[in-house]
Amino acid sequence: MNVMVDLCIVPIGVGVSLSPYVAACQKVLDEAGLKTSLHSYGTNIEGEWDAVFAAVRRCHEVVHGMGAPRITTTIKLGTRTDRVQTMEDKVRSVQEKMG
Amino acid sequence: MNVMVDLCIVPIGVGVSLSPYVAACQKVLDEAGLKTSLHSYGTNIEGEWDAVFAAVRRCHEVVHGMGAPRITTTIKLGTRTDRVQTMEDKVRSVQEKMG
Amino acid sequence: MNVMVDLCIVPIGVGVSLSPYVAACQKVLDEAGLKTSLHSYGTNIEGEWDAVFAAVRRCHEVVHGMGAPRITTTIKLGTRTDRVQTMEDKVRSVQEKMG
Amino acid sequence: MNVMVDLCIVPIGVGVSLSPYVAACQKVLDEAGLKTSLHSYGTNIEGEWDAVFAAVRRCHEVVHGMGAPRITTTIKLGTRTDRVQTMEDKVRSVQEKMG
Repeated sequence: MNVMVDLCIVPIGVGVSLSPYVAACQKVLDEAGLKTSLHSYGTNIEGEWDAVFAAVRRCHEVVHGMGAPRITTTIKLGTRTDRVQTMEDKVRSVQEKMG
Repeated sequence: MNVMVDLCIVPIGVGVSLSPYVAACQKVLDEAGLKTSLHSYGTNIEGEWDAVFAAVRRCHEVVHGMGAPRITTTIKLGTRTDRVQTMEDKVRSVQEKMG
Repeated sequence: MNVMVDLCIVPIGVGVSLSPYVAACQKVLDEAGLKTSLHSYGTNIEGEWDAVFAAVRRCHEVVHGMGAPRITTTIKLGTRTDRVQTMEDKVRSVQEKMG
Repeated sequence: MNVMVDLCIVPIGVGVSLSPYVAACQKVLDEAGLKTSLHSYGTNIEGEWDAVFAAVRRCHEVVHGMGAPRITTTIKLGTRTDRVQTMEDKVRSVQEKMG
């Protein structure tokens, strides 16, 4: 089952600068061979369900390993059986409607 | 790795009444032996990472199997390495501060 | 317009113990006269749109005032025009389907 | 108070094609003069708190007006008092750490 995910990982107890942790997660996702797109409040990921969630788990392990005692993560995830739709398709579909 | 999750599954393309789908997901979570607590905008789940996310995947499969062509799900998930904390601990901790 | 909200406020840069901040927000919501229900990963709120979001803004102001330099908040919010539905209605509706 | 928001509006009860509704919301945000950036699972918005949430409310009104009887929306929102940070700053900050 293919899934589209919006992932936002927030380490707690490590101060206010979170970008080193987000960068480490980005490397985890890249190493997992997942298609990703970083935006200002998270990372969009496209891939097979088990591969995506194994990588999300690995992100938590890596961020804890960097010293974060606590993590809160917000995920939006979409699946559909009616058609195949990529991350680019979704953006294009909205833009076309805006004329 | 233990995880606390807030799960909100929204089937799309099946009309406005979503409770049959939420009830089916609740059964999936129960059958997986997970500790859960239903609230007005989701379900809190506590358990081992892989067991929890296998059940979330199963929820998506079941909801698609009930006829939903598209699903969008929102998940909040927390892990911590500094201490063990149950769902009840979290609520109690806030209530104590409120005196 | 009536709205149902699930609110989860996470102060960043104040260590791992977040319950004092959640308790302070609960007091803000109570003082605003809003109907709320605390759960293990947030607070459900029911009320008129402007009153709810004025209270959410006040929560951010109070949490910053307590010393948090950064806050990340996750909100789920629902509106409907087809019927009136309370927080209790939503839970009951799912429970009835579970027989 | 400045706020950064990730907004994902999901109309329920209007079938599986949601892009016309997302496009209508994008127009609302543009007309409100807000800085936005569309991605594959939402729209990032940067602006003054009251202006942003007035526009989000307007989005709900417009989507209901287009015929959606029910809407569920997921919002992530961030505020900070320690520094000014734009949407571009956040992405750049992560990219710099990735070397």
